[in-house]
Amino acid sequence: MKLAVYTSIPDDELTEFLTLYDIGDLHSLKGIAEGVENSNFLLVTDAGPHILTLYEKRVAEEDLPFFLGLMQHLAEQGINCPQPVPMRSGKFLTRLAGRPAAIISYLDGNSVTRAQPDHCHQLGDSLARMHLAGEGFLLKRSNALALKDWRPLFQYSEERADEVLGGLQNLINNELNFLEENWPGDLSAGIIHADLFPDNVFFLQGKLSGIIDYYFACNDLFAYDMAICINAWCFEPGHAFNVTKARALLEGYSSVRPLIDDEYKALPILCRGASLRFLLTRLYDWLNVPPGALVTPKNPTEYISKLKFHQSVKSASEYGLDGVTA
Amino acid sequence: MKLAVYTSIPDDELTEFLTLYDIGDLHSLKGIAEGVENSNFLLVTDAGPHILTLYEKRVAEEDLPFFLGLMQHLAEQGINCPQPVPMRSGKFLTRLAGRPAAIISYLDGNSVTRAQPDHCHQLGDSLARMHLAGEGFLLKRSNALALKDWRPLFQYSEERADEVLGGLQNLINNELNFLEENWPGDLSAGIIHADLFPDNVFFLQGKLSGIIDYYFACNDLFAYDMAICINAWCFEPGHAFNVTKARALLEGYSSVRPLIDDEYKALPILCRGASLRFLLTRLYDWLNVPPGALVTPKNPTEYISKLKFHQSVKSASEYGLDGVTA
Repeated sequence: MKLAVYTSIPDDELTEFLTLYDIGDLHSLKGIAEGVENSNFLLVTDAGPHILTLYEKRVAEEDLPFFLGLMQHLAEQGINCPQPVPMRSGKFLTRLAGRPAAIISYLDGNSVTRAQPDHCHQLGDSLARMHLAGEGFLLKRSNALALKDWRPLFQYSEERADEVLGGLQNLINNELNFLEENWPGDLSAGIIHADLFPDNVFFLQGKLSGIIDYYFACNDLFAYDMAICINAWCFEPGHAFNVTKARALLEGYSSVRPLIDDEYKALPILCRGASLRFLLTRLYDWLNVPPGALVTPKNPTEYISKLKFHQSVKSASEYGLDGVTA
Repeated sequence: MKLAVYTSIPDDELTEFLTLYDIGDLHSLKGIAEGVENSNFLLVTDAGPHILTLYEKRVAEEDLPFFLGLMQHLAEQGINCPQPVPMRSGKFLTRLAGRPAAIISYLDGNSVTRAQPDHCHQLGDSLARMHLAGEGFLLKRSNALALKDWRPLFQYSEERADEVLGGLQNLINNELNFLEENWPGDLSAGIIHADLFPDNVFFLQGKLSGIIDYYFACNDLFAYDMAICINAWCFEPGHAFNVTKARALLEGYSSVRPLIDDEYKALPILCRGASLRFLLTRLYDWLNVPPGALVTPKNPTEYISKLKFHQSVKSASEYGLDGVTA
């Protein structure tokens, strides 16, 4: 079950909006279920299909030049990602239906519902290429959901955490203490995607055809991006860890950008942090469903289970790969 | 604000499903916000874009041959409507992700958010053409939401009706009594669309390009379909009746199939009935939101206001048109 909520666009505003672009006349506009944070439409004009995005409240308007600029930069570096379509004015960003709006190129392909090891291998390869391609991008954006933000975020949910699972408040406080004391500070950093879930990766005839949804991208540790992917791609529906997929992911990544030994050794703690980050946002959303909400939040227990798995990991070799660090 | 809820389709099932058709390989599949009753996807293959529909519980499976057959029949008669794409077997209907599923042709165009009189005129014209084109269609389906069904439907909401508006229970009971005594039984009948809201009508460069969503279509009075359109197209956002739009709608219709005098005179009571039908389903949905519902129901008060307007109408000439009946 998926969900798309979107702002409706008055006819006359849409017509005026399209005159700003050199993409011909409107054929059709359909709201699509893609990306949770924004309203996305498939916009077909004389120039073919595009994605029209209206940026909703959860995306900070001042971050949009970073996100759109990053997509353009990555595309120029040969990464298969959507890129913003310029207006006749040369700019990317305008307003539509009261919201910031941009037209983004359409990417062929389809996300997989049941990732196989080969998908994970290709993902690792593309993730490493993206990390390398981000290097020349001049804008910076700090991670708004980094280690220092987790404790303040937890304060909104702390008192009610045990409603979700007995002992959860203690579990999270202890984990925050551990992570704050042991988080690695000196690993390679750069542009990371920071939300690389299967929904955001397209495949076409079995080949990775593109990566979308850069609206959490930021500057942070490369290996933390890998940890997010391990969590999002390498667990089975019953929450069992699939070491074959993790090995494929790490091998794919290492074939392009070998992890250095310190990055590799830090994987267990980075995976714990990545688990806690998604546990905390899901816990917050779960406990704070607004009345009449159109969105059913994701259950946070999946990430409790992932966190506990990584707490039990004794060394990075349990992720299935040894001896391929640089 | 619009909403799409949809069933997710496992990769392997989708691949197997597509082998049933002669439309080439998958390019992309995106859930789209179109049609409230079913899950709709934009399916792009080597053969271009199509709509993939998974039929959800609210559509009775035994009605699907009627709906799909009707679309095919209307398309053959030159009506711009989506048509089912046959499988290699020649059949239209199969199962996917545990649900009845069909692929439907893609229709270019876009629904209008603010209908103008010219849109209403074109709609009237197309509605009349559709009524005439339905005549050779051999399958029948009685209207599951006809006069005789309204009182039983109201029984589910009756006790709580006054929660929505004081006096609503009485208003509806009195209206049911009036309609049951005065409903016209001897007007021309045939295939009607029965849900011709602006969402279901596409325009391309200002010209009506197609009518979609035949999942309420049935055999009923032609003029009742007109009454549904008057309600759906000829009121302003503040619920004021727009006589210019109604006149345009009636003129467009009459230019193809002039209403006979009895149909014309029956418009006020048909409009009252059409108001009550949507009032009753919206009232039911409003009072019976399941816990954790993903859909916010439409507020029923809009149709209370429309019902009261039509109760105040003294003759059909108040809809803006006189002297064009056959």
